[in-house]
Amino acid sequence: MNVEFINPFLSSLMNVLETMAMTKLEPGKPSMKKEEVSRGDVSGIIGMASPQTKGSLSVTFEESLALSIMEKMLGERPDTINEEVTDMVGEITNMVTGGAKNMLGDKGYDFNMATPTIVSGKNHTISHQCESSTLIIPFTSEHGKAYIEVSFDVLVK
Amino acid sequence: MNVEFINPFLSSLMNVLETMAMTKLEPGKPSMKKEEVSRGDVSGIIGMASPQTKGSLSVTFEESLALSIMEKMLGERPDTINEEVTDMVGEITNMVTGGAKNMLGDKGYDFNMATPTIVSGKNHTISHQCESSTLIIPFTSEHGKAYIEVSFDVLVK
Repeated sequence: MNVEFINPFLSSLMNVLETMAMTKLEPGKPSMKKEEVSRGDVSGIIGMASPQTKGSLSVTFEESLALSIMEKMLGERPDTINEEVTDMVGEITNMVTGGAKNMLGDKGYDFNMATPTIVSGKNHTISHQCESSTLIIPFTSEHGKAYIEVSFDVLVK
Repeated sequence: MNVEFINPFLSSLMNVLETMAMTKLEPGKPSMKKEEVSRGDVSGIIGMASPQTKGSLSVTFEESLALSIMEKMLGERPDTINEEVTDMVGEITNMVTGGAKNMLGDKGYDFNMATPTIVSGKNHTISHQCESSTLIIPFTSEHGKAYIEVSFDVLVK
């Protein structure tokens, strides 16, 4: 997978969270996923597909961070990961992918977005199944960790 | 969502598991997802997208059933959900979606498949975020439960 794929997702997530929830994420070093595992409590997953490319993106949050994002957006902090939180994570996933889609479209990579799926469960892990490797970027914030994982197979360019 | 979308996924899953792993699933009653939640230990998720449609599919297994499928395919039963098991669940997700894609293509619904993402984590739940409703089908077997969830937004037909 080409590294130029990852930056649009990274800057999209940081953008979305700053704009929607005044939450600043500090990106860590992107790495190819091998030993590294993104482990969290709520994840948004979205598929990307076109005749030329296929791939998947996940955005994973620790519960503390997801709840604090909700609090900043709505003024109230839910006790736990409820349906409002999963809807919000789905929305963030959509916006991150939509933002990246625009930037990648300018570079000649075009794809259609599937609808997001949201997973809730303490300490779950994610793996992306594709032919190329998966890139993972860890983020830290004062309220907890987040991860983006992106994998992309370019079939033809 | 049109009910004619769901049967190809249902028959594809039953087919794949019978052929690959001599595992017979008994389908329960499909329902619109409201109270119903599919809860399991390992899930394969795949996005579907085209200019006309977008959606997502998940196949969720209880650990006991996933391990028994591995045992029937390889002759050895892993102790736990390891990388081989998640790869196998990703493969099943791909095959189920590919099978359904062929059947739906014959009916004039065409989409590109994204790459599958696999989630592992005790007792996680899944929610699909789309405008139409999500259909859920529970399956039982002698080794545990499985669930398919499909959601599909048809933008234009």
